[in-house]
Amino acid sequence: MLHLQSETDCRWLAQVDADLEAILIDHAHCEKKAAGTALNLIFAYVEHTELCRQMTEIVNEELEHFHMVLDLLEKRGVRFRRLTPSAYGRKLNDLVRKAEPHRAVDRLLVAGIIEARSCERFQKLAEHVEDRELAVFYQGLFESEARHHSTYTRLARDFAPPEEVLARRDELAAAEAEILASSDDPPRMHS
Amino acid sequence: MLHLQSETDCRWLAQVDADLEAILIDHAHCEKKAAGTALNLIFAYVEHTELCRQMTEIVNEELEHFHMVLDLLEKRGVRFRRLTPSAYGRKLNDLVRKAEPHRAVDRLLVAGIIEARSCERFQKLAEHVEDRELAVFYQGLFESEARHHSTYTRLARDFAPPEEVLARRDELAAAEAEILASSDDPPRMHS
Repeated sequence: MLHLQSETDCRWLAQVDADLEAILIDHAHCEKKAAGTALNLIFAYVEHTELCRQMTEIVNEELEHFHMVLDLLEKRGVRFRRLTPSAYGRKLNDLVRKAEPHRAVDRLLVAGIIEARSCERFQKLAEHVEDRELAVFYQGLFESEARHHSTYTRLARDFAPPEEVLARRDELAAAEAEILASSDDPPRMHS
Repeated sequence: MLHLQSETDCRWLAQVDADLEAILIDHAHCEKKAAGTALNLIFAYVEHTELCRQMTEIVNEELEHFHMVLDLLEKRGVRFRRLTPSAYGRKLNDLVRKAEPHRAVDRLLVAGIIEARSCERFQKLAEHVEDRELAVFYQGLFESEARHHSTYTRLARDFAPPEEVLARRDELAAAEAEILASSDDPPRMHS
């Protein structure tokens, strides 16, 4: 369903054990960035009504999640702070082709792949941590991230033929798996 | 209440009469830009919890307005399209001081002044047009823009002493009146 080409392994789970706080703080930043990505897509493709409608919903949901994570941090006594992001987002965005309509396809697919990976990692995190509250929290977020992944992939098909979109999605998913496999980032949501 | 230093006069109302369509389309773009401004403030001051909470509400409301204007355009058979923006926003943003905390104060005050001017012009538009549907629409938006103006001014006081904020607000409001008085833009919400 998520079309990822690798499964998160014990290396990341060891990072979770080593610095759960950093992962949670980074997660808050990721939700904020996801809202920014969706709003940027409205700016770039403002004449595409359906895209604007879907992106508006995503902006609202991501900002809601951002505040949910901030509340969770506060409840756990973790001070929210700036954090160097992992190289993941930048490396994926570097793969976006420059010319339209390829650019639109890639921006939507990359956003969809990031949602898919978050989704997969939320599930892993929920299964891994002994902390019941945290497990419930991450299971609760799973469904909306999976929905966002579908929305992004569906919208990409408004900019190119379906078979082209699927081929490109697989290409980008392979690159994403490679980016994670070679990551040397400190503990982050996408390290 | 809006702390503006000029009143919109018949020059702008003549522009409304000359090209109402352009004003409406530009209004949709303004709502989108207002959402972008609020989200950018979250990115810039992410550790300021109250600011993030208030900006999230504003992002949601501005995007809701954006879609309300798009629906209004569709109902009236006006095709939504890209439009050269007026120089207003750029000229105001050029006045933002570079060093913090002045930068935060100015960004918030400029955003507040733009909301105030929109608010004042919505009222003028509602009074001026004979079109009942449009009058009701713009009266409906008045209240939330006025609230946004207060929110921005209040938040600026978290970054500088109140008397400094009020003095700067008056300075920027004077500059804003000057920018509009010397505008040679085609019909826009802030021409």
